[in-house]
Amino acid sequence: MISKIEAKYIQSLHAKKNRDKEGVFVAEGEKVVQEFLKEKIIPVKLFATEKWALENKTIQGNFMKIASEDELQKAGFLKTPNQVLAIFPQQHHLFIPSKNKWILMLDEIQDPGNMGNMIRTADWFGWNHIIASKDCVDQYNPKVVQASMGSLSRIRVQYEALDHFLRETDLPVLGATLSGENIITLPKEKTGILIIGNEGKGIHENLKPFISKQITIPRIGKAESLNAATAFAIIASHLMKG
Amino acid sequence: MISKIEAKYIQSLHAKKNRDKEGVFVAEGEKVVQEFLKEKIIPVKLFATEKWALENKTIQGNFMKIASEDELQKAGFLKTPNQVLAIFPQQHHLFIPSKNKWILMLDEIQDPGNMGNMIRTADWFGWNHIIASKDCVDQYNPKVVQASMGSLSRIRVQYEALDHFLRETDLPVLGATLSGENIITLPKEKTGILIIGNEGKGIHENLKPFISKQITIPRIGKAESLNAATAFAIIASHLMKG
Repeated sequence: MISKIEAKYIQSLHAKKNRDKEGVFVAEGEKVVQEFLKEKIIPVKLFATEKWALENKTIQGNFMKIASEDELQKAGFLKTPNQVLAIFPQQHHLFIPSKNKWILMLDEIQDPGNMGNMIRTADWFGWNHIIASKDCVDQYNPKVVQASMGSLSRIRVQYEALDHFLRETDLPVLGATLSGENIITLPKEKTGILIIGNEGKGIHENLKPFISKQITIPRIGKAESLNAATAFAIIASHLMKG
Repeated sequence: MISKIEAKYIQSLHAKKNRDKEGVFVAEGEKVVQEFLKEKIIPVKLFATEKWALENKTIQGNFMKIASEDELQKAGFLKTPNQVLAIFPQQHHLFIPSKNKWILMLDEIQDPGNMGNMIRTADWFGWNHIIASKDCVDQYNPKVVQASMGSLSRIRVQYEALDHFLRETDLPVLGATLSGENIITLPKEKTGILIIGNEGKGIHENLKPFISKQITIPRIGKAESLNAATAFAIIASHLMKG
């Protein structure tokens, strides 16, 4: 059973300030919760249906409580019926810089779906470090957690003042714009920082002086722009070719 | 002013059966509405704030009515404040097959954000024909219209029984799977059909016999899969290289 107090607590974690105060976040759905458990992250609390508990007998601990599907749906943020909801501690991965890895830098990404999708794509391509501006959507926003499909368990998202960070680095800095070098014919580079700008406004003016190369995805058709997460995925796939 | 009857009518267009009965769909937001108007699609009705009307003086006609921001928000589907909402007639583009163009085939795409995003990406790369299975989300779903950012005005989405269609065609058929040829080193082809499968289940078994080549985006990291719209965008960008 999920008590009224517990349901209220889960709902309160919809707000970033409460998540940060408590140092936790909510993950929902079998696939997403499973990915965090696989990475050996111990939940603070885990509510699951009897069915889920039977299918996942290896998951045991004081953190676990049986709940009905109905209770899970009422307490959680998902609209679809669901078997499991867990409260996990926020992660503090160690940042290990590497001369063979790219760093993704996000400049005011607003849409949680885009943010989560980029975390998932970064994880696919083995880019495990993301630097986000302080006005990006929070990595623990329920919709971000959902769209990242568990990849948040492996990817470090660090919120920074981007201009300070860029001033200090000697890595090459690529910026995705609408008038740069063609990404498809670009020579391969092994490491660097790739900046993806805000969905509507692109990369902020104050960051442009730090860009060593502007890059562009060639347009054949007529769409005015690409979705930010889509642009990142295309660029990442071309940076790893060759 | 938006009358009660008009507001009720707009709300009724949230349901596919009402959109289809009326032969119309709703587009909201300056960017999206503008794109349809640019393609010379005449709205059945257009509700706009005085501000929008002043900024868009060339848009005139019996279809136009002034409304307040508040009325627009109440009548429409968007959560953010908005200047314009239009009811457009559903489109019937002519399908012109081409030996230099790719066709995107969608197999049970469920998420409206993914569907809209793929329409936008297809438009960017000049793939202007999409064949969708009958169980794909409707192209005129408000969230699809929103995510396509106006590209729906240029892209034809045709709902078909995919196996019938594939039985008839002599074009090469690529299928995006997790165990095919590496898309990055694939030789370039000028035309064909690319199948993108359902978000959870991938491509249905009954379509697999029609695939002439399975293709895969190489994974460096640990994510189990990529978002369907992301996978399409990466593949499309690699099919056009060379």
